[in-house]
Amino acid sequence: MLNIPDSEYKRIVVIGAGFAGLNFAKQFRGKRYQVILLDKHNYHQFQPLFYQVAMAGLEPSSITFPLRKAFQKYDNILIRVAELQRIKSAEKRIVTDQGEIYYDELVLAMGATTNFFGNENIAKHAYPLKSVSEALALRNSIFEDFELALMEQDFEKRQGYIDIVIVGGGPTGVELAGALAEMKSHILPKDYKELNSREVDIYLVQGGDQLLKGMSSKAAKAAKDYLTEMGVKIIFGTYVVDCDGKQAVLKNGDKIPANKVIWAAGITCHKIPGLEDDHYVRGNRIKVNKHLQAEGLDHIYVLGDQAFVLDEGYEYGHPQVAQVAIQQGSHLAKLMQGKTSKPFEYRDLGSMATIGRNKAVVDLPKFKFKGFFAWLLWLFVHIRSLIGIKNKLFVFINWMWNYVTYDQSLRLIIKPSNRNKAKSD
Amino acid sequence: MLNIPDSEYKRIVVIGAGFAGLNFAKQFRGKRYQVILLDKHNYHQFQPLFYQVAMAGLEPSSITFPLRKAFQKYDNILIRVAELQRIKSAEKRIVTDQGEIYYDELVLAMGATTNFFGNENIAKHAYPLKSVSEALALRNSIFEDFELALMEQDFEKRQGYIDIVIVGGGPTGVELAGALAEMKSHILPKDYKELNSREVDIYLVQGGDQLLKGMSSKAAKAAKDYLTEMGVKIIFGTYVVDCDGKQAVLKNGDKIPANKVIWAAGITCHKIPGLEDDHYVRGNRIKVNKHLQAEGLDHIYVLGDQAFVLDEGYEYGHPQVAQVAIQQGSHLAKLMQGKTSKPFEYRDLGSMATIGRNKAVVDLPKFKFKGFFAWLLWLFVHIRSLIGIKNKLFVFINWMWNYVTYDQSLRLIIKPSNRNKAKSD
Repeated sequence: MLNIPDSEYKRIVVIGAGFAGLNFAKQFRGKRYQVILLDKHNYHQFQPLFYQVAMAGLEPSSITFPLRKAFQKYDNILIRVAELQRIKSAEKRIVTDQGEIYYDELVLAMGATTNFFGNENIAKHAYPLKSVSEALALRNSIFEDFELALMEQDFEKRQGYIDIVIVGGGPTGVELAGALAEMKSHILPKDYKELNSREVDIYLVQGGDQLLKGMSSKAAKAAKDYLTEMGVKIIFGTYVVDCDGKQAVLKNGDKIPANKVIWAAGITCHKIPGLEDDHYVRGNRIKVNKHLQAEGLDHIYVLGDQAFVLDEGYEYGHPQVAQVAIQQGSHLAKLMQGKTSKPFEYRDLGSMATIGRNKAVVDLPKFKFKGFFAWLLWLFVHIRSLIGIKNKLFVFINWMWNYVTYDQSLRLIIKPSNRNKAKSD
Repeated sequence: MLNIPDSEYKRIVVIGAGFAGLNFAKQFRGKRYQVILLDKHNYHQFQPLFYQVAMAGLEPSSITFPLRKAFQKYDNILIRVAELQRIKSAEKRIVTDQGEIYYDELVLAMGATTNFFGNENIAKHAYPLKSVSEALALRNSIFEDFELALMEQDFEKRQGYIDIVIVGGGPTGVELAGALAEMKSHILPKDYKELNSREVDIYLVQGGDQLLKGMSSKAAKAAKDYLTEMGVKIIFGTYVVDCDGKQAVLKNGDKIPANKVIWAAGITCHKIPGLEDDHYVRGNRIKVNKHLQAEGLDHIYVLGDQAFVLDEGYEYGHPQVAQVAIQQGSHLAKLMQGKTSKPFEYRDLGSMATIGRNKAVVDLPKFKFKGFFAWLLWLFVHIRSLIGIKNKLFVFINWMWNYVTYDQSLRLIIKPSNRNKAKSD
């Protein structure tokens, strides 16, 4: 039972505490609404920095924030750790793994998950990076494999442990490739003196003919130049069609002997039982009008990655990025509270990606640049966006530490013991 | 294959990178020895603060330190992540899960693990706290259960989620009880407004008639008074004979409806295949002479929790604490390097335990005290003992933050995704 107390106020149920859901709910402090925020985790995750957790540059706790702490001062906002299982739109109810609940208004802000394009081998063996849990699994795996590589005398087998294939040349792929290249040159020679770090190959496979699709061609070229200079092997115009935990197979038949394939090649949204197929477009995004209301579904709204706003001039919908989610969250809150009646309009503040120390690319609406100042701006924007003063402080110290020492102390292979599972036997 | 390069120097193999093994190995920087340090983890763990990780007061990374980073500047010390499986003392070889290796001298510093006294139910359902992984599992479980409690309307069932039984009134039990009591009074009313925090009962079950056995009766009484004042229910003179994930059963037949039983009631050492039974004493400690050589086993030495030094005036052996391990590690290194020929002599620097904010007890050899200054000394000693400047800094900031705000932001239920397991299918 979700055990929600009755309230005289209208009840808004929000599914998902990512950028969209969190920012939406935050607008309701002290308002005459009862807001129920559901998430399957008890924390908000800061997606843009998952790759740094995977690369042992930041701690998971620095880029996550407990929802209950975020809403300690919001008496009308109730948090429940639960997973949506079905929408019964005719009854205005949802079913979760913790029981059913009635809504007056339902806000879907469930984000997106990794798209393996139906390839079961890849889904089973590749490493996705869409949660802090997945980032931790990747971190553990990278360092486990380095340890094993050290004990492997066979050259071919050793390459499997140390070579890494990254699939997808978007921001995540580019940032991962850059961070791995820095680990190769700054960390491995110190931590693994017995390994020949030159044996470590980092491949970045990109289906199209340029990186950072969605950014300017200037940024794309700069990213390519940076990565090439850092020793990353970029393969354009092909993609990974199979992997089995031992090697990656490219479309042209080439095989790369790498146990680890990191899959940053595409995202898709969850399909929700109870909704008909015709509510979805490409990538399982749900069609909404310019007021973010789901087409043909009363009292249901969709935000962020999961929303596809019709007729707004974006052929493929808005980009599935944090800024859109945040702006939609605020806008829908204003609409519901009657503070505006305008349609949603996305204000593109620009985009950026970091490749490494002093190396970043920034596309502002009127100005595009790269290098040290781009990197500084990237740092500033990301620290500013983190929730919690202590998280900002710890990330800042970590980054400064890393900048000065070239060497973090987070290369830990830590997993919780399986006690929790024993309990649920 | 462990893949260890040949060396002209004598080879010392050390099993375990706890306080004893780490401190032993550290003495060999630049010496004419080849030191192989084996541990099943790639990090050193700072045991005295496991309870703070479990109570969401500190991050795992703050109290662990990567072994490779600790030994970056030690060219003659090789690290291998491997588990000891057997000692072949006649051949001077050991077998590990990664292959065999020859030793000239073997140093066992494997520490101790939880003693469930042969009770399978307890071993299966209770939460031990002898590793940072177990601390994380406990942290996750505590917060999972608070979430479930909120959604449980049945009073009895709800008590199961929120009541906690701690077994064992030593430092770990006392520190846990104190930290839980502080969580109950400072955190729960803010994070879980919908729960009645007065329903939360914290039980501390201690077999004997006083807490902190091994410390002074003054410290024991102070700890009891502090905990009682903080609302912890201390039960003396009995013990937990069974638990099943729903309730704990005491020897007198009383039942406490608590899903979580934390087991801090005793430790025991690992038995090692290849050693005869007569090498062990109580708790599977291995008999050593005053030069820390295993009785009847040439070229094998034992340090720390695992060692039982004969004829040294301690009826039950030295206390199994960090100080003994550290001093033995240094002493054995000196013995091996010919810098001393004296027998090991333990210098008791005193002991301390913290119960809560401004509440600690300290027994120095000539002076016993409690309260604010005891607490400050506890903080200082623990920060000083941590490895790594950044760990010291982060723990210091965390503690100051907590002192000022009464509120950390580490109450996260995070587990790595099971990707690593999928891979090993």
